[in-house]
Amino acid sequence: MRVLGVDPGLTRCGVGVIDGQPGRPPELVDVGVIRTSTGTDHAHRLLAIEQGLDTWVVRFRPDAIAVERVFAQHNMMTVTGTAQAAGIAMLISARHEIPVALHTPTEVKAAITGYGAADKAQVGAMVARVLRLPAAPTPADAADAVALAICHLWRGGATNRYAAAVQAHAARTGRR
Amino acid sequence: MRVLGVDPGLTRCGVGVIDGQPGRPPELVDVGVIRTSTGTDHAHRLLAIEQGLDTWVVRFRPDAIAVERVFAQHNMMTVTGTAQAAGIAMLISARHEIPVALHTPTEVKAAITGYGAADKAQVGAMVARVLRLPAAPTPADAADAVALAICHLWRGGATNRYAAAVQAHAARTGRR
Repeated sequence: MRVLGVDPGLTRCGVGVIDGQPGRPPELVDVGVIRTSTGTDHAHRLLAIEQGLDTWVVRFRPDAIAVERVFAQHNMMTVTGTAQAAGIAMLISARHEIPVALHTPTEVKAAITGYGAADKAQVGAMVARVLRLPAAPTPADAADAVALAICHLWRGGATNRYAAAVQAHAARTGRR
Repeated sequence: MRVLGVDPGLTRCGVGVIDGQPGRPPELVDVGVIRTSTGTDHAHRLLAIEQGLDTWVVRFRPDAIAVERVFAQHNMMTVTGTAQAAGIAMLISARHEIPVALHTPTEVKAAITGYGAADKAQVGAMVARVLRLPAAPTPADAADAVALAICHLWRGGATNRYAAAVQAHAARTGRR
């Protein structure tokens, strides 16, 4: 099973792809960041994120997409951009008929480190260890995207049931 | 000048198209609502909004798109969906290289009724009067979308300068 993790953001949108098979440690396929400039107008930044994410989906054909669930933060402007980037990731998932699941930051940290309040360094270190990498992917948004993908793979039970429900719905409504 | 107004929403996304020429009252071209079901998964609702908005843009070829600026509201789930629908409207604007501008609800109400705290009935009544319609478009989301388009036309000065800046930027970065 191949999972694309997306850590949504307007300035830096982390993306990470892993492959997982039962009984074997997951393998890192690729990891990166889609960047947009603060000097670009908002609409074209969203377009760049859409095009960037679509390229990753077409190139790696994931079986599932895991997106960080966005919550209200201190800065409303930031949360709007983050929510819109997450929405674009979901939109692309639906367009390609790939099941999408949302995971909260706490769920990701707990799945990866066993501790829901782990800091970025701890998450990065565990991502490196799980994938047998010499160091955590950088920047943190890239490591977070990989952590999301690992979380999705490991939380398989619940999320796969969700994905199955999405697929069943799509089939029922004739979208596949 | 043809303007498409978009009142973003996940369940009901209002859309209205008007034509305006200097010295003549604006004319209503078409108005409607893109609806998505609460029984559909979130990702496919976003996809339906994208496809619906894209159809309106392709059919009516507006010179500008006006989107309501989203603010934090009481219900964080609602604001996330609304922000994502607004983001999709902006994304489509950028994709078609149509200038997009955001207007706050207060700006729209003030432009249409002269009173920034006007209620929906007052906005609807003024929309009907301006466009010489027998009654306000329904539902309110449709009337609000038309009000956004009228607001955009009437606030021409500032918004046209913004649109010109967006176009200049697009030209500079080779996107046209």
